[in-house]
Amino acid sequence: MTKKYHVAVVGATGAVGTKMVELLETTTFPIESVKVLASKRSAGKIIPFKGEDLIIEELTADSFEGVDVALFSAGGSISATFAPEAVKRGAVVIDNTSHYRMDPTVPLVVPEVNPTSLSEHNGIIANPNCSTIQMMVALEPIRQAVGLDKIIVSTYQAVSGSGAKGIAELENQIREYVNGTPLNELTAEVLPCGSDEKHFPIAFNALPQIDVFGEDGYTLEEWKMMNETKKIMNDETLKVSATCVRIPVINGHSESIYIETKEETSLAQIRLLLADAPGVTLVDDPSQQLYPQAIDAIDQGTTFVGRIRPDVDNPTKGFHLWVVSDNLLKGAALNTVQIAEKMVELNLL
Amino acid sequence: MTKKYHVAVVGATGAVGTKMVELLETTTFPIESVKVLASKRSAGKIIPFKGEDLIIEELTADSFEGVDVALFSAGGSISATFAPEAVKRGAVVIDNTSHYRMDPTVPLVVPEVNPTSLSEHNGIIANPNCSTIQMMVALEPIRQAVGLDKIIVSTYQAVSGSGAKGIAELENQIREYVNGTPLNELTAEVLPCGSDEKHFPIAFNALPQIDVFGEDGYTLEEWKMMNETKKIMNDETLKVSATCVRIPVINGHSESIYIETKEETSLAQIRLLLADAPGVTLVDDPSQQLYPQAIDAIDQGTTFVGRIRPDVDNPTKGFHLWVVSDNLLKGAALNTVQIAEKMVELNLL
Repeated sequence: MTKKYHVAVVGATGAVGTKMVELLETTTFPIESVKVLASKRSAGKIIPFKGEDLIIEELTADSFEGVDVALFSAGGSISATFAPEAVKRGAVVIDNTSHYRMDPTVPLVVPEVNPTSLSEHNGIIANPNCSTIQMMVALEPIRQAVGLDKIIVSTYQAVSGSGAKGIAELENQIREYVNGTPLNELTAEVLPCGSDEKHFPIAFNALPQIDVFGEDGYTLEEWKMMNETKKIMNDETLKVSATCVRIPVINGHSESIYIETKEETSLAQIRLLLADAPGVTLVDDPSQQLYPQAIDAIDQGTTFVGRIRPDVDNPTKGFHLWVVSDNLLKGAALNTVQIAEKMVELNLL
Repeated sequence: MTKKYHVAVVGATGAVGTKMVELLETTTFPIESVKVLASKRSAGKIIPFKGEDLIIEELTADSFEGVDVALFSAGGSISATFAPEAVKRGAVVIDNTSHYRMDPTVPLVVPEVNPTSLSEHNGIIANPNCSTIQMMVALEPIRQAVGLDKIIVSTYQAVSGSGAKGIAELENQIREYVNGTPLNELTAEVLPCGSDEKHFPIAFNALPQIDVFGEDGYTLEEWKMMNETKKIMNDETLKVSATCVRIPVINGHSESIYIETKEETSLAQIRLLLADAPGVTLVDDPSQQLYPQAIDAIDQGTTFVGRIRPDVDNPTKGFHLWVVSDNLLKGAALNTVQIAEKMVELNLL
């Protein structure tokens, strides 16, 4: 008989945690029980699960007694405090926050890209940043075939990446605008970054700030994309430069990616590689106006790639791609659940 | 006494034409009279101008009798038919459509960048594409100082670039959404491109198509940016690669621009160059969350530049910039009027 596992979801009421619980309803991962954990404020609330009611419990260290696998998505400080407590009690933690991602003892995993890294875990596995994951799924087949020398990416990120509060803020601003509020007087209290000092409207705007700025002029979101890419692809020499931008989209990150390959390749070869790639859906027929769109990606568990075309000035090694995915699914909750599934497949649980 | 000129505005009821008439109220260009021309449908309508009423006349070849300067913004086919008629009657045409831009006998001018090209005109001067103009204003000071080898640009373009119909479509979709219409059922009849077959919602979406596709997988908008840049900077060896994307912003184009310079430079030097550059407003202090934003650019006649930072992997020759401008003003109407002003300054009229 297949072993079944006791699972905990930490941050079960958030934008990503809600998706995690939904995905556990249909996952191939063998579940014995699901425990939903959140702050004291949410304790007692009900989450439906396979026709039953899960009651949210307040997160404490002892919540992890008897838990086999704990999926964390409640912010970096919660993971810092409670992931070690979960590990101490015998659980394997799959952490969706940025806290452990660059820790050299913690594997950072996209199952389609570096599943073998999972075997090196010491109790904690990190789920990469949303904008990194979809880029990795799209580029890994190309890297494997012809190598990657350089990546220049500009993102078009949805507000759901900043959590339920970000979605509410955009929707509220839209309502204010329809009711006559001028663009520069829309209420902004969350974006571009809840923990930063100033807040700006996202409705009808493009905000070139996601997360706080480092002293070098890059935002932490940009550093996440640059550093995580090198770790996941296990190549410190890979050149990666990112510009991360929030736009008024509810859900679904889009990315304009420019790559330079190590060996010569072609549009035809890249299309062939991506047509067969795990987790990729090729949507690339300009003659039929077929290209990935954020609104088509919502609730889809795949990464859409299109607008593939050679750089006119570097046609055998320079290529553009337009990559779109549901940032709450493949960018977060789904990748986390897929890590758990892959660990069972690899007999690592 | 200064000579004064008889001016005609062709397409005076459009998104850009309306701005042209507004700008003529305050321009330093010496005006004797303004004639407003449009299709038969709009004839008889009133446009206020300096406290008086201008009555729209139907555009015919004879409309240009006695006109010294004709500003065109009524679509490429109107320019193709009527610009030669205006020239035949002695007018100088400044054309905001794409029709004459790549004609080798027609100067393509951004006054801050290549004003001397104006002297080579044969009756017609072309105004570049909106997304090209703001990029040129931001990059020319850098090119002059240290040369430019390569430009990779991803745009975040406002719906006003597609005209008044594009603005109305976004606003209508926003209202539909607030009233409960699902995202994928929003009414789309104009964007991404009025003349193409399929139409997709722009609200809460990012559309990687502006204008129609060429057979090479690039859109015409992308080709405009690539070809016009080389012509304006007068450098056929300059490498330019563009990805043009429409986002749900009413007005104000943003651009994520990556450049490689020919000579080594630094963040400090680029900031100094741009702080002094004509037509540029530097907004670049990440420590204070100061960077250009589309909603701040509306109704501003300048090009905002910020988020300047070196490419970590190429820190002396690779740089990112975030460039924002009101696409109806500097991107269209204002640049057209500035061309007329510059021609007076250079004694070319």
